Amino acid sequence: MCQLLGMNCNVPTDICFSFTGFQARGGATDVHSDGWGIAFFEGKGHRLFLDPQPSCTSPVAELVRQYPIRSKNVIAHIRKATQGAVGLENTHPFVRELWGRYWTFAHNGNLLDFQPELDGSFVPVGLTDSERAFCWLLQQLRQRFGATPPDDAVLFAEIHRLTVEIARSGEFNYLLSNGDWLLAHASTRLSYIVRQAPFAEAHLTDQDVSIDFSEVTTDRDRVAVIATQPLTDNEAWTAMPPGSLWWFAEGEVRAQRITLPGPERKSPAAPTA
Amino acid sequence: MCQLLGMNCNVPTDICFSFTGFQARGGATDVHSDGWGIAFFEGKGHRLFLDPQPSCTSPVAELVRQYPIRSKNVIAHIRKATQGAVGLENTHPFVRELWGRYWTFAHNGNLLDFQPELDGSFVPVGLTDSERAFCWLLQQLRQRFGATPPDDAVLFAEIHRLTVEIARSGEFNYLLSNGDWLLAHASTRLSYIVRQAPFAEAHLTDQDVSIDFSEVTTDRDRVAVIATQPLTDNEAWTAMPPGSLWWFAEGEVRAQRITLPGPERKSPAAPTA
Repeated sequence: MCQLLGMNCNVPTDICFSFTGFQARGGATDVHSDGWGIAFFEGKGHRLFLDPQPSCTSPVAELVRQYPIRSKNVIAHIRKATQGAVGLENTHPFVRELWGRYWTFAHNGNLLDFQPELDGSFVPVGLTDSERAFCWLLQQLRQRFGATPPDDAVLFAEIHRLTVEIARSGEFNYLLSNGDWLLAHASTRLSYIVRQAPFAEAHLTDQDVSIDFSEVTTDRDRVAVIATQPLTDNEAWTAMPPGSLWWFAEGEVRAQRITLPGPERKSPAAPTA
Repeated sequence: MCQLLGMNCNVPTDICFSFTGFQARGGATDVHSDGWGIAFFEGKGHRLFLDPQPSCTSPVAELVRQYPIRSKNVIAHIRKATQGAVGLENTHPFVRELWGRYWTFAHNGNLLDFQPELDGSFVPVGLTDSERAFCWLLQQLRQRFGATPPDDAVLFAEIHRLTVEIARSGEFNYLLSNGDWLLAHASTRLSYIVRQAPFAEAHLTDQDVSIDFSEVTTDRDRVAVIATQPLTDNEAWTAMPPGSLWWFAEGEVRAQRITLPGPERKSPAAPTA
């Protein structure tokens, strides 16, 4: 199992504070020591830092923690290997280009016997169920919409349909972004918070580090942070119910859909933003 | 114009020494200050560090210089923008996946009016002529060979044909790798050296830094380094004649083809390895 961290904002924001707590879970305060990665969008550009080392001792993670890269969409992942050996090619997030945009994806969970037919348009490089699911999802979007992307609502509906299909194979918590928006699927465990004015002080759960967001923000800033487990111990995080897909854009929840039908799922909480 | 640096080896080798000299050209000893990037293969895995800042002051470049990542294939690039603004999406090397492998590409030169028809399988994210040429090249390989890669000799012949076609549009020095091999095309200016036993001391041109390779290598190591301009001032680099495409694998030249027909081109020098 792994841990996920995502950020979606209305202005480019650095993730140094949240990453400080998250990084500690990669081998220090938690067991996820089989590599880590973080993807930043800067406009249409994309930066991906990967390291098969544990994040708590990785020099690359130390750089990311100290170098404020400002981004509107960030996806990070620390890995506890289930399928696929420890190695760079199996390290999340994964990235591919579709419709002239980079798409980046990270997964927490385990898909059993998920072996869909791949047409060669997106082929996994490594051996994880995660990269296979990502490649298949992009392939299906390409097959359905051809060379031109649909509008966001149609795209979200189709990704919802594909998510339901993949989730039949097992636990499928994921984060997905194309730089414009960030999708979060809670299969079993995912929480989020939207920070906006009035901003207050936040204190990390994993390290004794605090930040007063009112000192580093403006009144118009809005930042959604999504994580496997809440990163702070003095803020109200919303647990995303198992079987819910969330579309974040400009730091707020834009839409939400149920992916787990029937009595198994709880009713989703109202978005806080 | 830009500068290129490539490395192809028979054992995973760090590029810290060469990168130290190369990094200085990004704004310190030379004018290429519009961003930089470096791509490392580690097995099938791929790491890409990009920064739109000048490499001589980039904290990411400082990390790369100090953190010995061992790789058999490396491509680095420092940029002086010709087409496309300074920005992450226009920063080389570019990467795409083809046939379940990452392919990485960096270009030095300027292609005029190169606007090939793209079928949507590989679409540029940024606005450079370079990324357009890379996407078209991969698209042509996909169209020609379908979902299964041909053997290396057939692949090299086809890339040669496509290189000749693209090079009609202008200056097209490039480095290309899929992690197994590294191709280098000298359109105007590119040099290489193969270091192997007996190893000796090398001294950088751009900084007063030396290394005694005999202390950090074994007798079986073989390392090819390719650069726009020789990086050291006490070794014999081979200038690659304008209009020549070189296939490096396991640290040696495996094949070479002429891309510029007629009297314009000089006869290529014999490979030193």
